[in-house]
Amino acid sequence: MRNELNFSGGPGALPESVLRHAQQAVVALPETGLSVLGMSHRSSWFREVLDETERNLRALLGIPDGYHVLFTQGGSSLQFSALPMSFLRGCGRTAEYIVSGYWSAKAPQEARLEGDTRIVWDGAPQQYRRLPDAGELHLSPDAAYLHYVSNETVEGVEFSETPGLPDVPLVCDMSSNIASAPLDVSRYHLIYAHAQKNLGPAGVTLVILRDDFLQRAASPLPAMLDYRTHVQARSVYNTPPVFAIYVLMLVTRWLRDEIGGLAAMAALNRAKAQLIYGALDAHPDFFRVHALRPYRSAMNVAFQLPDAATEAQFLHTAAEAGFAGLEGHRSIGGLRISLYNAVTLQAAATLAAWLTEFQRRHG
Amino acid sequence: MRNELNFSGGPGALPESVLRHAQQAVVALPETGLSVLGMSHRSSWFREVLDETERNLRALLGIPDGYHVLFTQGGSSLQFSALPMSFLRGCGRTAEYIVSGYWSAKAPQEARLEGDTRIVWDGAPQQYRRLPDAGELHLSPDAAYLHYVSNETVEGVEFSETPGLPDVPLVCDMSSNIASAPLDVSRYHLIYAHAQKNLGPAGVTLVILRDDFLQRAASPLPAMLDYRTHVQARSVYNTPPVFAIYVLMLVTRWLRDEIGGLAAMAALNRAKAQLIYGALDAHPDFFRVHALRPYRSAMNVAFQLPDAATEAQFLHTAAEAGFAGLEGHRSIGGLRISLYNAVTLQAAATLAAWLTEFQRRHG
Repeated sequence: MRNELNFSGGPGALPESVLRHAQQAVVALPETGLSVLGMSHRSSWFREVLDETERNLRALLGIPDGYHVLFTQGGSSLQFSALPMSFLRGCGRTAEYIVSGYWSAKAPQEARLEGDTRIVWDGAPQQYRRLPDAGELHLSPDAAYLHYVSNETVEGVEFSETPGLPDVPLVCDMSSNIASAPLDVSRYHLIYAHAQKNLGPAGVTLVILRDDFLQRAASPLPAMLDYRTHVQARSVYNTPPVFAIYVLMLVTRWLRDEIGGLAAMAALNRAKAQLIYGALDAHPDFFRVHALRPYRSAMNVAFQLPDAATEAQFLHTAAEAGFAGLEGHRSIGGLRISLYNAVTLQAAATLAAWLTEFQRRHG
Repeated sequence: MRNELNFSGGPGALPESVLRHAQQAVVALPETGLSVLGMSHRSSWFREVLDETERNLRALLGIPDGYHVLFTQGGSSLQFSALPMSFLRGCGRTAEYIVSGYWSAKAPQEARLEGDTRIVWDGAPQQYRRLPDAGELHLSPDAAYLHYVSNETVEGVEFSETPGLPDVPLVCDMSSNIASAPLDVSRYHLIYAHAQKNLGPAGVTLVILRDDFLQRAASPLPAMLDYRTHVQARSVYNTPPVFAIYVLMLVTRWLRDEIGGLAAMAALNRAKAQLIYGALDAHPDFFRVHALRPYRSAMNVAFQLPDAATEAQFLHTAAEAGFAGLEGHRSIGGLRISLYNAVTLQAAATLAAWLTEFQRRHG
């Protein structure tokens, strides 16, 4: 199999130039001559890695002053707990959650341990094929916060509009579509995203947090679950995943220097999605896309073929052709094409042509 | 600076052969042709990485049946909270903590959030230069557990005897000396260790946990802080740090195949420590070792020179000679030589000779 044809749902492929730099760094960083794996997290070298990564993310995502940028561990799963510990526990309000897929359904389970939790919309009865339209959401202006997941990796549905009420803190898990397009960070109180889709390797989780929201956090909390710990320690309270953060920095450089920013990234992502959905939509009885059309994700394309035998044949011949990562998530089966930032337009075109050919032979 | 002369306190140096394999894997794993950074944690390839790592650790450390082996995130700092959440919260007993250094002093701070906590010995009044002798510990047979840190990275003191009472669950943070010597796991109910000293890169934390202890854990807990979550999901509840675990596997292979197991590793570590302490002890007025002699660590040698100017000169000329990572921890200053598993006997000999020469010139 080949890196440039890796369409994995995550951890996702990384850009070729990032892999080359990361490979060199494993044996000897240009700056120090030492392996990145043996660099102290208290070194001035690593402080500059953290600082540059933050600067690059602030520039790329347009993160305003008044927001903290943190690098943590534990993925969204740990954020599912850290969020309500800080902002629901003891506050006397209700936290609201939109459940739009396999992933977002997990978040309120953790919140219930900390306080009143209300699911304001649940896509399960419709197999998570669609998302709420604005008029369907009956939100409370008194909620502790509204939580949603901007892109559902498993089912392939993605919000195109930002939900929420102006005066309710908005919290979003952007793990699977962060940095895929320009973003209005000022609309959010808290954003988090694990790196292993669009930002880097597994092991580091980005948190973007409004300072005035942080002031409301409950106390005391376990140190590692208290956002203040990481703000005060500037992301080195304990040893962070040095290598994962270094690669995240390389990805931010790639986004800036090779892609040219998030508007250019978004244009590429739209073109990739058009190629893939175009190939699938040409044969809708053969390629059965899970998501309803208005809610389709540009990052994850979940679909099924007419029967399990054809799906097995698909995976087998795809692997022979060098394609990787096309299995659907175990919760819904079928197939999935993930088009994260590092997947090139060329790779999407190659796969689209191969899809068409596969249908011609097996349709 | 040179990897083979990296004496960092952590993240520590890794063996040369491990770095070579890791470097190749960043671009293309021999088994899959894909970058390790883009491999799915649900792939059969990664399942085998987890399984082999566990098998190798069980063989190396002699982990008996009835113990779980888990790979988690968040380092010891998150374990400081996970431990009392599971085994102190609501149990009506008191957790006992030995405070023997900078690091172990942090653990009871987290335990106090969950229940009664008692510090059974505190080395702070003696600047953490020594450890408790067996007769000094007045332990309760009714404690929820006894927690200690087997090696203090900052001050360079290391337990040579295992403390505790037979009927009280013993919990140990072995982050900075795990796998440095053979171990009787059966003496413990719970062992944890972050990887970045003796086992691999930063980002993964090993947990070894007795099953009958796990049965007593409090419930419900936040999913990521509940050991049952990781047992049931076999360490893939959410996306684990794939690369860090892969490198950990490479380190276990190196320990088995190149070193020949933990008895051989211990002999090498003793020889390394003898070389370094020997060079320092030859000039005790110049090289002032922090730890009292019976408590000295084989992993971390903390010491001071007569004045700050000489220490600055030391670091400057050491860096020019290719040595890295010799700064003392910011909490006590001075200098530190860390002799983790991957530091070779040759490197220790080179540094010992350089220490002697430095003393000759500046003493």
